[in-house]
Amino acid sequence: MKLVTYLSGSRVSIGAVEPLGVVDLSAIAPDMLSLIDGGPVMLDRSRAAIGAAPDAIPIDHITLLAPIPHPRRNVMCLGLNYAEHAKESAEARGREYKQHQHPVFFTKATHTINRHEGAIPFDPTVSEQIDWEAELGVIIGRGGKNIPIEQAYDHVFGYTCLNDVSARDLQANHSQFFKGKSLDGACPLGPWIVTTDEIPDPQHLQVICRVNGVVKQNANTAVMIFRVPDIIAILSRGMTLDAGDIIATGTPSGVGFARKPPEFLKPGDVVEVEIEKIGVLRNRVGE
Amino acid sequence: MKLVTYLSGSRVSIGAVEPLGVVDLSAIAPDMLSLIDGGPVMLDRSRAAIGAAPDAIPIDHITLLAPIPHPRRNVMCLGLNYAEHAKESAEARGREYKQHQHPVFFTKATHTINRHEGAIPFDPTVSEQIDWEAELGVIIGRGGKNIPIEQAYDHVFGYTCLNDVSARDLQANHSQFFKGKSLDGACPLGPWIVTTDEIPDPQHLQVICRVNGVVKQNANTAVMIFRVPDIIAILSRGMTLDAGDIIATGTPSGVGFARKPPEFLKPGDVVEVEIEKIGVLRNRVGE
Repeated sequence: MKLVTYLSGSRVSIGAVEPLGVVDLSAIAPDMLSLIDGGPVMLDRSRAAIGAAPDAIPIDHITLLAPIPHPRRNVMCLGLNYAEHAKESAEARGREYKQHQHPVFFTKATHTINRHEGAIPFDPTVSEQIDWEAELGVIIGRGGKNIPIEQAYDHVFGYTCLNDVSARDLQANHSQFFKGKSLDGACPLGPWIVTTDEIPDPQHLQVICRVNGVVKQNANTAVMIFRVPDIIAILSRGMTLDAGDIIATGTPSGVGFARKPPEFLKPGDVVEVEIEKIGVLRNRVGE
Repeated sequence: MKLVTYLSGSRVSIGAVEPLGVVDLSAIAPDMLSLIDGGPVMLDRSRAAIGAAPDAIPIDHITLLAPIPHPRRNVMCLGLNYAEHAKESAEARGREYKQHQHPVFFTKATHTINRHEGAIPFDPTVSEQIDWEAELGVIIGRGGKNIPIEQAYDHVFGYTCLNDVSARDLQANHSQFFKGKSLDGACPLGPWIVTTDEIPDPQHLQVICRVNGVVKQNANTAVMIFRVPDIIAILSRGMTLDAGDIIATGTPSGVGFARKPPEFLKPGDVVEVEIEKIGVLRNRVGE
């Protein structure tokens, strides 16, 4: 299923995107986090509801919101999880490249969450170096602590496109990544969550980023340094993961700040994150 | 007021600690976040309820929980905000000391929240380098974005003691601080929130950490590099702060990993964070 959170009139609902449109699933659960909390039973009920639905809402009659508009805690992210990106970053920062032996984890604040087609705020008094990062987003289905690597996939609810928008000047100035990664609206997410039955293997997905139609990033999740099961196993060691947690798995090479000369987003630019088997997440940079 | 969240029997309530005991404030708000959300009106009602209370519960009849047991997002923290600690850290890591021109921000996951007298989990298979960090915790009262420095104090609800328990091996291995700072139970908080009327100036408070009764850290918030108003102004630039947000303001020198030889916590150790005008937050390291 392709699960969405959407606005129809003034009402926020959850639904599933089907060929004929969006099937309302608000009778199953009031919001996406409740649906995820409900586990496989809720997914079965959702499938039954889709099968029995008398009609669907044409998708151009609704506004898609982020699939999880208000996560319960910060988005957890990996830095430097594609070797080519780790190399380009080291070079751009004038540092020697050395592959990390352990994943690099940081977080993005909750108000970063943005919707498909939502504007990415642009305030040059805050940052003049807004950059893109196309990433596969993992949504945790069943929480847990010390999750064994061989059971990690059992804890995944689904996958989505994620843009880890980064303010490079703040990221560098503040030393730790949090502030530069946490400006309001700096985490476009969506357009939907694709459940794991449709993506049994997330490690063979092409991840593409386009800016104004020009391909900037293009790589396969097959070359991730730490794969989804590694990430879940390592992150959950001594640290409980929750249903509904969002994990950004790192970005491939081709980001703006590492280009020669560096490129940054400016008002009016359109950024697209496209991931195979998921879809396209599109955002315009605001004025 | 000294505001607490507490367990009495199987019921979680909020209250105020008075000389005769705890006055139940559950008629004012169901939990601490709701009380904070309610703003000055709720504080006025709380004061009136305290004045009119026929009795109080002796504090040894209840169990104190963390004043905010379930924050809505990660705890936000400053690293290296006392020069002497920044120096000892640089030396212990074999790096040259250079004062940061911008605050270093990172976060702790929500399940780090621990209560006064709660056990700090100890699992040597996860980390063998559990360290203490006594810190002044700031609780945001009124949210906001781009908060001017001269209005920053208007956004503070109160202050508390906080122990930014840190797994030094994980912190170093994972490069960014998040994972090493985010083990379950690694953020003892409390015993209560002291409202700003009792602490008009948080920059003249002695912060002390004792391990098994021995003073390990002892410094005054007067020597913080970035003060509370700086932190709020800089953190909120382009990034919305929320009512109920918890900000850890950094730790003084005297942490375990920078000692010669290094010292780490072991099962049975008792760590106390004492802050002038607030009180003592005490935790034992679990087996």
